[in-house]
Amino acid sequence: MKQLFSKSILIFLAVIAISFSADNPRKDYSGFSDANAVIQQKLEKQFDTLLKASDIDYFIKTLSAHPHNLGSAGDKANVQFILQKYKEWGFDARIDTFYALFPTPKTRLLEAVSPIKYKAQLQELPLKEDATSSQTSEQLPTYNCFSADGDVTSELVYVNRGVPEDYEALDRMGISVKGKIVIARYGGSWRGIKPRLAQEHGAIGCIIYSDPKDDGYYQGDTYPKGAFRNEYGVQRGSVEDIPLYPGDPLTPGYGDTKNAKRLDRKDAPNLLKIPVLPISWHDAKPLLEAMTGPVAPEKWRGALPITYHVAGSVKVHLKLEFNWNMVPIYDVIAVLKGSVAPDQWVIRGNHQDAWVNGAADPISGQAAMLEEAKAVGQLAKQGMRPKRTIIYCSWDGEEEGLLGSTEWAETNATELQQKAVAYINSDANGRGFLFAGGSHTFQTLINEVSSDVTDPEMNISIRERKKAHDITSAASVAEQKEMLSTPLLKAEPLGSGSDYSSFLQHLGIAAMDIGFGGEDDGGEYHSIYDSYDMYRRFKDRGFVYGVVLAKTAGRLTMRLANSDILPFNFTDMYATVNSYVADIMKKLDDMRTQTEINNKLLGNKYYMYANDPTKPIVLPAPKSDVPFLDFAVLQNALVKLKASAELYQKLADANHNWSASVIQNLNTLLFQSERKLLLTNGLPNRPWYKHAIYAPGYYTGYGVKTLPGIREAIESGKWQDAEEQVKETTKVIDAYVAELDAATALLKE
Amino acid sequence: MKQLFSKSILIFLAVIAISFSADNPRKDYSGFSDANAVIQQKLEKQFDTLLKASDIDYFIKTLSAHPHNLGSAGDKANVQFILQKYKEWGFDARIDTFYALFPTPKTRLLEAVSPIKYKAQLQELPLKEDATSSQTSEQLPTYNCFSADGDVTSELVYVNRGVPEDYEALDRMGISVKGKIVIARYGGSWRGIKPRLAQEHGAIGCIIYSDPKDDGYYQGDTYPKGAFRNEYGVQRGSVEDIPLYPGDPLTPGYGDTKNAKRLDRKDAPNLLKIPVLPISWHDAKPLLEAMTGPVAPEKWRGALPITYHVAGSVKVHLKLEFNWNMVPIYDVIAVLKGSVAPDQWVIRGNHQDAWVNGAADPISGQAAMLEEAKAVGQLAKQGMRPKRTIIYCSWDGEEEGLLGSTEWAETNATELQQKAVAYINSDANGRGFLFAGGSHTFQTLINEVSSDVTDPEMNISIRERKKAHDITSAASVAEQKEMLSTPLLKAEPLGSGSDYSSFLQHLGIAAMDIGFGGEDDGGEYHSIYDSYDMYRRFKDRGFVYGVVLAKTAGRLTMRLANSDILPFNFTDMYATVNSYVADIMKKLDDMRTQTEINNKLLGNKYYMYANDPTKPIVLPAPKSDVPFLDFAVLQNALVKLKASAELYQKLADANHNWSASVIQNLNTLLFQSERKLLLTNGLPNRPWYKHAIYAPGYYTGYGVKTLPGIREAIESGKWQDAEEQVKETTKVIDAYVAELDAATALLKE
Repeated sequence: MKQLFSKSILIFLAVIAISFSADNPRKDYSGFSDANAVIQQKLEKQFDTLLKASDIDYFIKTLSAHPHNLGSAGDKANVQFILQKYKEWGFDARIDTFYALFPTPKTRLLEAVSPIKYKAQLQELPLKEDATSSQTSEQLPTYNCFSADGDVTSELVYVNRGVPEDYEALDRMGISVKGKIVIARYGGSWRGIKPRLAQEHGAIGCIIYSDPKDDGYYQGDTYPKGAFRNEYGVQRGSVEDIPLYPGDPLTPGYGDTKNAKRLDRKDAPNLLKIPVLPISWHDAKPLLEAMTGPVAPEKWRGALPITYHVAGSVKVHLKLEFNWNMVPIYDVIAVLKGSVAPDQWVIRGNHQDAWVNGAADPISGQAAMLEEAKAVGQLAKQGMRPKRTIIYCSWDGEEEGLLGSTEWAETNATELQQKAVAYINSDANGRGFLFAGGSHTFQTLINEVSSDVTDPEMNISIRERKKAHDITSAASVAEQKEMLSTPLLKAEPLGSGSDYSSFLQHLGIAAMDIGFGGEDDGGEYHSIYDSYDMYRRFKDRGFVYGVVLAKTAGRLTMRLANSDILPFNFTDMYATVNSYVADIMKKLDDMRTQTEINNKLLGNKYYMYANDPTKPIVLPAPKSDVPFLDFAVLQNALVKLKASAELYQKLADANHNWSASVIQNLNTLLFQSERKLLLTNGLPNRPWYKHAIYAPGYYTGYGVKTLPGIREAIESGKWQDAEEQVKETTKVIDAYVAELDAATALLKE
Repeated sequence: MKQLFSKSILIFLAVIAISFSADNPRKDYSGFSDANAVIQQKLEKQFDTLLKASDIDYFIKTLSAHPHNLGSAGDKANVQFILQKYKEWGFDARIDTFYALFPTPKTRLLEAVSPIKYKAQLQELPLKEDATSSQTSEQLPTYNCFSADGDVTSELVYVNRGVPEDYEALDRMGISVKGKIVIARYGGSWRGIKPRLAQEHGAIGCIIYSDPKDDGYYQGDTYPKGAFRNEYGVQRGSVEDIPLYPGDPLTPGYGDTKNAKRLDRKDAPNLLKIPVLPISWHDAKPLLEAMTGPVAPEKWRGALPITYHVAGSVKVHLKLEFNWNMVPIYDVIAVLKGSVAPDQWVIRGNHQDAWVNGAADPISGQAAMLEEAKAVGQLAKQGMRPKRTIIYCSWDGEEEGLLGSTEWAETNATELQQKAVAYINSDANGRGFLFAGGSHTFQTLINEVSSDVTDPEMNISIRERKKAHDITSAASVAEQKEMLSTPLLKAEPLGSGSDYSSFLQHLGIAAMDIGFGGEDDGGEYHSIYDSYDMYRRFKDRGFVYGVVLAKTAGRLTMRLANSDILPFNFTDMYATVNSYVADIMKKLDDMRTQTEINNKLLGNKYYMYANDPTKPIVLPAPKSDVPFLDFAVLQNALVKLKASAELYQKLADANHNWSASVIQNLNTLLFQSERKLLLTNGLPNRPWYKHAIYAPGYYTGYGVKTLPGIREAIESGKWQDAEEQVKETTKVIDAYVAELDAATALLKE
């Protein structure tokens, strides 16, 4: 089979090469010989003609027709639909099944017991303007997945976003949450940080509500008139401690296959001990309004028509019980074997499961990926089979904690580390601007591809459009000036929050995350209103950004699958890591100045003198001075990386006439290079995360921390750990340089 | 009479000098010989013992017992009370009467006519918790004084603060206010800017409302539970174009004495042509809520529980008619003739008239001034008569446009310019931190006095407390660092908004404005809730900050009245003006970079590309490049000022044994020096304002513009005017240096 296809593709390519020989050779197809660049360009043009907005409409409508959370009938139906489609399109498709812990609500009770009586309704309302919103019996109730069971009654304390600096502010006000129930508003961090920090500070329960300032009427007209969260909308979501490790809480670091050994639930380190419940502002307002303590600091105030108070006198009763069931995870895996290098895998994924109907999250991305797979399959059927193997993955159980992708990656870790060239992720998609994040070895690739795709509403490249967006929304004229002088679109570093995490941060597989948005604002996130009716009105009218996502991710996938030499760019990686080191060094200097000044202000009693004497203040002890740290070893390693990267890039760009075996060996070294960026022991206190350059922040959640070992040690004032992490990071860079030099050596042969 | 007092004071002072000879000579009483500093210190200690919080309570309660706006019975009663008190305390007191135009409402109607029907209630509600709030028949209705008559019906456009940048944003959205009625929210500028700009942009009416974000529930609990503006509270206030000229609109630049020649009302250049009405958020909400146009930019959104829209479909009818009456202005003037230099006048003032009961604004300041006058009078009766003449002024008609002080200053301009040493102003006062603004020749004096007065709630000097406030609320660590290294408390430059304006900016009399606040937040401003009941609960519990204001302003007054050499410090003035020039030059550089970058972004179409294509955008034409301007002449003049100021200061500090005639001549030169800072022709397009260093901003109102001629020319891109103003300012500095050198020459004799 393989031989046949290889032959036919060679003949086909020869034909194309002849018919396009008049074209100017493309210089912006990194890793392609001139001739193959022309062929690839033709392929992509043909690919584009196969993409139909009407298909994306159909996929979104079909796959969001019913609630389809993990373990539901809707989920199973979608999985079957997707499997069938992949098969139709010529993929070798299968379902990989895992078994994960998945709690669903049995009891949900929240009531104010004094001085007011109020029983929270905890229910989103069906709307006549939204067809699927009335599928109440199929909907998961509003809850936070992986909350603990609990039955607690105590006073309420408002903790703003519930992030570390909020607790510092509470300390200064002399307010403790010990033994209290906190109420935090969504936003400002990944949601799981809020109950974890509440628990760390001694709270016995946590409520998270959606303030209208963040995604409600303050932002725009509310649903169904506009797109924003209405009075009753609730954000569901997982509170598993993903920054510790994602996936099934009971199988950290290995797959939760049927007979895997599982932790006892009470021993799972990434599970909360306190109950936590998300509510609408309709339910939050009576509670917040009745509070009588100190007025909340200005930054803490939302858009409810009340005076926000921090604490005082409102007692609530929160009771939550869950069914702690094991459910099957169905990952749909669709393989298109490569014609030249079948053991080099380009993996493309998007999750399929949703909290409710999930037309935007994740079906809009899933639909674009399916459309892309359809076209890739059709091209293969026409003889244009990729050189490398392409694997499409429709993940299950992402919402609960990246379950499907994590368990699959953990189960297949060894083979993936041998064969995976790259992982390309997408998720919810909508109108607007390109988002492109990932390993910075792919920054040039992202720039090349995004130059070739046209924005459907503006008729310029998506790269130009993104650049326009970034530069016009820059924080300062100085930044704008710098951006005007920088030709490259910078790739964003990746934190967490979607399925790339295991590939990139656990296995060291170079990854990208791609999508569009910014003109698709709304407040439907993780509510029953994330529906087809909503999507087609507000998120991507005409489904044109679905087509653009397919064009973009399809190109990335196919260039990685067809290039002669893999288009890894190491000078981009060098420049990026170097800028992170400079940034950390500057932050350290700023911390030093800030600590010095702050200690002076404390010493002079200025904080006490500036305080209103009728309002209590608890002053912190002066902090110890911020030392100077030794970054020299790392800086020296980066100097080597710079030289090695420049030399490799020069040789790689010069010649495409290496022998097949050199190319095979070279490509293996190239795609293995990202593995070298893994720290031997992973990050301190969270060894699941092994990547030295990118990780989700332990106190920010989804938000990325670059050079996380060093950065987080400095941020938490652990100076010795920071120096240790500088050394560990240096080892990683040294190994990376060695891999790169080995690749360069091949090119010199 | 004079001789007698002079003798007795000499004897008394001699006694004091002996009894205090053991004291260390004071080095921080600028302008006093060592011996006289000791005497002055004793005087001030005695002064302090005469100040009673209970008196301030009594004055506030009495003077705010009834509404007492200009022309009212309450006003007349207060004037008589104050006159009587000054007389009791030994002052030569009188009433100076003027006659001003003062419109009061005859008809007030605001209603939405489509698509909703709503008739605005335009009425604040009496509260049982607030005794005077029910004096409805005595209260001025809610209105903006000097609105035009009008009867207009049109669509509503929300213009945020209604300042120039808001109209630029509207332009970009393609929204015109021409022929429309604008609704602006209070804040972000002096209120009068809002209707003036609306009128300049072609609007036919203007509504100004109090958004709860600015002084309502967003800030804290509302009245009567807390101090902030409740649903029905309305901010009255003048919309006379004070940045053009204050005082009676019909007598610009001269006193509105009984038979003065008056402009026809329609010809008064500082009167509006369109009707304007202030409303509560209770009345604004239905109008704003019904709007359907583009969603307002984020910065424009207030704290109402609605989506703020900019325009669209709400038609309102606004009808206003006024009684355009002439009313008497009663300024109470109380003179205590100086024992040594009766023709050197130290003038101290605070207005007495209010919009309604005005317990805070202005009675809290008036009460402190009366208490100060009482004590100064008592000291004089005990033989401690001041060397220079002290004049206390209780102004009338401040609220309508600084009428009482302006007409008095204009009427007595010649004599004032001959005799006035300084003008010291206060206004509303409350708990918190010192505010001290004024001519920077007084910066050292302010520092010396504020070091000697103790904060009643913190037991440190008010100077230290203010420093603690400023440094802990600084915007950046860099600023904090700079402030830690600066020993001086910086005096604020003065714009407008209270009665110092005519003295400082029209006549060139060195002035100060003094008060306390920052822990007295509230939303009572210009409403019926600015009452005694409110004041004693929220603004100054125990009236201790009233006593502190009396201590502070009393010391400033008495040091200016008793110093041997007037404590003008010219190195402070030099350093301040020099910093303003540096600031303007940096602003010009920033404008240049900004314009250059902005033009590039326009040229690259980045603004267009970044815009949501479904939302219209109107792009401005590129601006012409910002040129380099020649500041050299001014910088050279400042170099001379520096040298002259340092030499003067050195000589003045060294010796206090000059002859009486040298001292007399020297002091005259000193207090005349501020006159030299007046521009011959005043500011461009508003010649009433003559001071080269300080003016209210033409587009900010109360907010100051330093070096206004230069700064405003640059801000509006009038480069030639800017260079012209640099030259005019240079002339002024040269004349100032000449005056200073003449003073120095006297010291060398």
